Amino acid sequence: MHQRTETLTVETRGAGLYEITDQVAGWLRQVGITTGILTVFVQHTSASLLCQENADPEVQRDLERFFRRLVPDGDPLFRHVAEGPDDMPAHVKAALTAASLTLPIHAGRLALGTWQGLFLYEHRRHPHQRRVLLHAIGDATSGTPGGSLPSPPLA
Amino acid sequence: MHQRTETLTVETRGAGLYEITDQVAGWLRQVGITTGILTVFVQHTSASLLCQENADPEVQRDLERFFRRLVPDGDPLFRHVAEGPDDMPAHVKAALTAASLTLPIHAGRLALGTWQGLFLYEHRRHPHQRRVLLHAIGDATSGTPGGSLPSPPLA
Amino acid sequence: MHQRTETLTVETRGAGLYEITDQVAGWLRQVGITTGILTVFVQHTSASLLCQENADPEVQRDLERFFRRLVPDGDPLFRHVAEGPDDMPAHVKAALTAASLTLPIHAGRLALGTWQGLFLYEHRRHPHQRRVLLHAIGDATSGTPGGSLPSPPLA
Repeated sequence: MHQRTETLTVETRGAGLYEITDQVAGWLRQVGITTGILTVFVQHTSASLLCQENADPEVQRDLERFFRRLVPDGDPLFRHVAEGPDDMPAHVKAALTAASLTLPIHAGRLALGTWQGLFLYEHRRHPHQRRVLLHAIGDATSGTPGGSLPSPPLA
Repeated sequence: MHQRTETLTVETRGAGLYEITDQVAGWLRQVGITTGILTVFVQHTSASLLCQENADPEVQRDLERFFRRLVPDGDPLFRHVAEGPDDMPAHVKAALTAASLTLPIHAGRLALGTWQGLFLYEHRRHPHQRRVLLHAIGDATSGTPGGSLPSPPLA
Repeated sequence: MHQRTETLTVETRGAGLYEITDQVAGWLRQVGITTGILTVFVQHTSASLLCQENADPEVQRDLERFFRRLVPDGDPLFRHVAEGPDDMPAHVKAALTAASLTLPIHAGRLALGTWQGLFLYEHRRHPHQRRVLLHAIGDATSGTPGGSLPSPPLA
């Protein structure tokens, strides 16, 4: 049984979904865990994680439209306002989505469905650097990881 | 340390919760992991997972009533409408619930609370075949798994 | 590869967030898993888990204000009312947040961000005893766990 860890840094430019599937999948090909589980964890409370459709970008914008209407900036309900009108709504949106995701690894790849992608979901308006931790545990091969996969792009 | 994996197929007949506790528990008895963790992952973005009360079926219907009111079909907010009025609401409901769950395995059984069950939550109106991946990692016995448990029903 | 498990009991005194970071971190220092993952699982369907800001307590109260407005007690939508006006809203709030969280363990510590804490989120008005299961899997040291950490307070 082997373990591998990595920290991704995601540069955000305002609220919305930022796809990280390629970075995660590229790292996974490199580390050579063939069967196991991947834990993805965001080290922030005003950004979160989503596993969502990555085919039509309008889906990602509609998700953002919905959450912005459900948890509007500047809502007078909130008292924690010192960090701006988008701060407390950001915490709420993070609570409504995910801080951690765990995904099976099969044949050296993330076992995502056809239309699934991994996203960092930024809830603040201003640019941020977000840290996403990756942890893989499972069986590793000694040779080329991932069977018939092409060479790892991050190697 | 051992790993076991399985794919469940859940046939849905419209929006609502479909309990999968028995299939998951039955598979777990078969594979003989006594202490460890189970990861459940849904390979779709218009269906999701819930760990919820399985005693009174009215709870499941009330959950569905709430989510249908919170994210109504045909909401003019949404622009991703090509796949029908229930498609984008399905993605939103999936974002509000869970794509993955991780549960401890204790004495060869899922460590669920007394009233807890595992559910696939279908968000589309029409029937679908949904794939749910199971991954167990932990210590395995060589003899009968799960101590005093009866024979596995799926064996 | 090693595994450790524990059950925390959290005594709640009404709806709101109860921080469990110190209990979880203290237990983790004791068990000596240096690199791995921690699974936190709540064995109830009317309480849940959150990974949220633990600096300003007003954030926790604002979260509770938001969820109470979003899912009001006594909502006539609900038919499962035998256990009181706060029961079905509790199930909904649990569905909207998390039943399980998985966090990386790094250098013998939980890899939480600077402002992150772990919370049990109680959704019922009356006091309850809530069970939270902890499961750690990973590499363990034979000597002092956690490297340069001080002696475990729970030892």
